[in-house]
Amino acid sequence: MITLYWCPNTRASRIMWLLGETGLDYETKHIDIRDAEARKDPGFQAASPMGKVPAIADGDVTVADSAAIGLYIADRYPEAGLAPAVDDPARGRYLFWMTYTPGCIEPAMMETARGLEPNRASSGWGDFGLMIETLEKGLGDGPWLLGEKFSAADVLNGSSVYFMKQFGMLTGNATLDAYAERCLARPAYQRALARNEAT
Amino acid sequence: MITLYWCPNTRASRIMWLLGETGLDYETKHIDIRDAEARKDPGFQAASPMGKVPAIADGDVTVADSAAIGLYIADRYPEAGLAPAVDDPARGRYLFWMTYTPGCIEPAMMETARGLEPNRASSGWGDFGLMIETLEKGLGDGPWLLGEKFSAADVLNGSSVYFMKQFGMLTGNATLDAYAERCLARPAYQRALARNEAT
Repeated sequence: MITLYWCPNTRASRIMWLLGETGLDYETKHIDIRDAEARKDPGFQAASPMGKVPAIADGDVTVADSAAIGLYIADRYPEAGLAPAVDDPARGRYLFWMTYTPGCIEPAMMETARGLEPNRASSGWGDFGLMIETLEKGLGDGPWLLGEKFSAADVLNGSSVYFMKQFGMLTGNATLDAYAERCLARPAYQRALARNEAT
Repeated sequence: MITLYWCPNTRASRIMWLLGETGLDYETKHIDIRDAEARKDPGFQAASPMGKVPAIADGDVTVADSAAIGLYIADRYPEAGLAPAVDDPARGRYLFWMTYTPGCIEPAMMETARGLEPNRASSGWGDFGLMIETLEKGLGDGPWLLGEKFSAADVLNGSSVYFMKQFGMLTGNATLDAYAERCLARPAYQRALARNEAT
């Protein structure tokens, strides 16, 4: 049984969505990450080197950080169909998108939220404009980042697009608005958001 | 035959190191990423959605971004022994460290280099201090992030530690100094750095 360490209004809700897509049984353990005492939970400490959510334990395996958890779950449970196999030609693009949320979207959001001058050449994430443009191109004819096939990369990037919309960082972008709508229409995402609201 | 799109003094040198560790044959294609004309190379454009190095082509597979390339190479060529198998208990920690460089080290470096006030609770990367502390704890008794076993995660994080030292962001840290020395002692890293110097 997988244990998901989570807290409302954090990146952990995207892992609820991901697990919901797999149909795997899992239990949730609520960790109030703003409370130093709660963060001392031994299982949580073992699972999360930075004391952050999401983190999971799956038997003797522990994984923290939503991209790493997504990579783990999709490969460990291939019957869920959330990742191209290692020898599938789509594997390269899949991995690019799996690291896009932590490596590009989040730092570019931070730069923009703080009104910083970007450095497109030096920063791995380019800048906010290039990050959005790359995402739009990546969706191409869609509906998903890998074309017809929904994958764990859509959970990571779709939830990030939804965050950007909620934070008012993305207005009037027809491609990404439509992508967010497709993501929000997935029952597993609706259940994860409802659970977040209810807590 | 793998093609590596690279440019001196970029993150591409760490993929030279990685490929050197595998013993795989590869060719390099120099792309001057500061030159808009050079970035129009069709092979490079197909491989790199953001127009950045490193990027690789391996037959009909293309991968961009050093963490994604590391994940791809280590799983696609398991005989190199650079990643725990999908069902190995070390897989979770390996994936955590594979996303650590883009998701934690680089944004924390940027924050520090710009003298910004960090937001440990909200940022996925915590702050510079937590990022360094987590890396030190992760090395534990070492010598590598997964203990006795060198992996692609050491290529990503070891090269980042070396960058931080070069940028003067890491002084008097015995654990990370020793880790950088161990990484620099690897012949494949020496060859990659020599190739960078020679260009």
